[in-house]
Amino acid sequence: MCSVVSRVKPVRRVLALALRLGADAEGSSGSAARSGRFRPAVCAGVDPPPASARRYCTRMAAGDGPLLRQLFEVESSTYTYLLADRATKEAVLIDPVLETVDRDLKLIRELGLNLTVAVNTHCHADHITGTGLMKKRLVGLKSAICKFSGASADVLLSEGDKIAFGKHYLTVRETPGHTDGCMTLVLEDQSMAFTGDTLLIRGCGRTDFQQGSPEMLYKSVHQKIFTLPDQCLVYPAHDYLGQTVSTVGEERQFNPRLTKSLEEFVNIMNNLNLRKPAKIDFFLPTQKLQFLLIWFVDYMKFE
Amino acid sequence: MCSVVSRVKPVRRVLALALRLGADAEGSSGSAARSGRFRPAVCAGVDPPPASARRYCTRMAAGDGPLLRQLFEVESSTYTYLLADRATKEAVLIDPVLETVDRDLKLIRELGLNLTVAVNTHCHADHITGTGLMKKRLVGLKSAICKFSGASADVLLSEGDKIAFGKHYLTVRETPGHTDGCMTLVLEDQSMAFTGDTLLIRGCGRTDFQQGSPEMLYKSVHQKIFTLPDQCLVYPAHDYLGQTVSTVGEERQFNPRLTKSLEEFVNIMNNLNLRKPAKIDFFLPTQKLQFLLIWFVDYMKFE
Repeated sequence: MCSVVSRVKPVRRVLALALRLGADAEGSSGSAARSGRFRPAVCAGVDPPPASARRYCTRMAAGDGPLLRQLFEVESSTYTYLLADRATKEAVLIDPVLETVDRDLKLIRELGLNLTVAVNTHCHADHITGTGLMKKRLVGLKSAICKFSGASADVLLSEGDKIAFGKHYLTVRETPGHTDGCMTLVLEDQSMAFTGDTLLIRGCGRTDFQQGSPEMLYKSVHQKIFTLPDQCLVYPAHDYLGQTVSTVGEERQFNPRLTKSLEEFVNIMNNLNLRKPAKIDFFLPTQKLQFLLIWFVDYMKFE
Repeated sequence: MCSVVSRVKPVRRVLALALRLGADAEGSSGSAARSGRFRPAVCAGVDPPPASARRYCTRMAAGDGPLLRQLFEVESSTYTYLLADRATKEAVLIDPVLETVDRDLKLIRELGLNLTVAVNTHCHADHITGTGLMKKRLVGLKSAICKFSGASADVLLSEGDKIAFGKHYLTVRETPGHTDGCMTLVLEDQSMAFTGDTLLIRGCGRTDFQQGSPEMLYKSVHQKIFTLPDQCLVYPAHDYLGQTVSTVGEERQFNPRLTKSLEEFVNIMNNLNLRKPAKIDFFLPTQKLQFLLIWFVDYMKFE
């Protein structure tokens, strides 16, 4: 079990799990509904009460705000986020991409950081995650993903789990809808939320494949993200228009889809007629192979 | 004269100036040397003493840090920066790009900002600036550029000039080398520097065209940027590797070119053998036409 993540069940590193990527959408959604993932997070008592911007900045004034670096991969328009404790140098990487592993590792080395966890907000169909390669390069690095993603990782996360790095931590909010295993990671003082593909800047993730459900996405955003403070910064996993950050307040006011009623939203999402993601045919077998390789390397270590 | 800029000479809106884009490199460089632009800024008494990160954050704690949005244009890999006073809503836009004028104006409108100045850190050869179009869309918007750029604008800036937006201001540091009219804009507490093409993340602007001079760029960086506090955030005009921000301390330690001796740096820069910027053939006549059009529109208003 990874020591940086609290309240997480032990990882079951079994081949069957490693290969269970193309999970049954209905079954997964059902499990999400059963687990009560749609209770508003503020009511669930998972996080501390919302912090004001003033409170967040007061913590910054004490010189203890985390280091944040936003990194971009141009082909898949993906943002990777590096967060670190300035004092202890412990770091977390969110949504690494295969093509930029060298760049990210170079930056981590230059900044003298100790990367302990690489976490994916969901199982991405539009690019190949860099987590597997990063694990091979950094001994001791743990991978993490939501337990409902159907993917294998060292740590399987669920609602309320905390990913610690030094004195800071990210809290998991399960936000299914784009996929059944999507989650939003919220900094301890609710000043930043890493929303993956659930909430994009003036947009949201598509819901027409990989266990997608517009109803579920709408509920996730309204109950788990729009309940964060207005000034909470929204850092998505992708942007296609050169926007780098938004806030909860802005999205609540200006998001052209999520300001609509649930019925209108579902209608919009069911009529987008989008093309299949470019890498989806390559993605599924490659991810399976990647997870199998990680499992095999781990297995050989202990034999 | 633009009221938001202090210590700026009146603008001379003459056709000769509007068309004087391709300035004589030697003459311009000479003028730069004569004007004493290479005195280290910390000695010149232009800015207040460097602020520590703690001091900056203390100001943030009082709720008066500026709003900052970094925006990206993918074709020319250009960053545009929107800065605003949270209370008065006065805003400044740094390095707007023609292709993203609509996106930027939409954001400005949504955030309820009053954009008073669009400033270019230099005369860009690799894209067409959006300033002209933006002026046509926003009545009262002033354009600003360094007086050594050879370009026309409402406000011609020089060392020590301040661009105010609400209670905040950016101070001009002339940093020639990539072009003779390059400048770095430094926030009042030296917590952020918008370095244009002078200093890029782990790189710098090329020096092989448009009055380029590797010696001058080296001096600009070492005397005007590397004299800023280590923790000062470096926001460049371009990045080609998906990096969004750096710090003065990092660049002083890891910039592969500018950590070299002056002699080595000049040798590197003179042997890059780069291709001509994609838009340079289109850029010069188009920019001239753009400035001529702005002049003509202004001229007609007063006739």
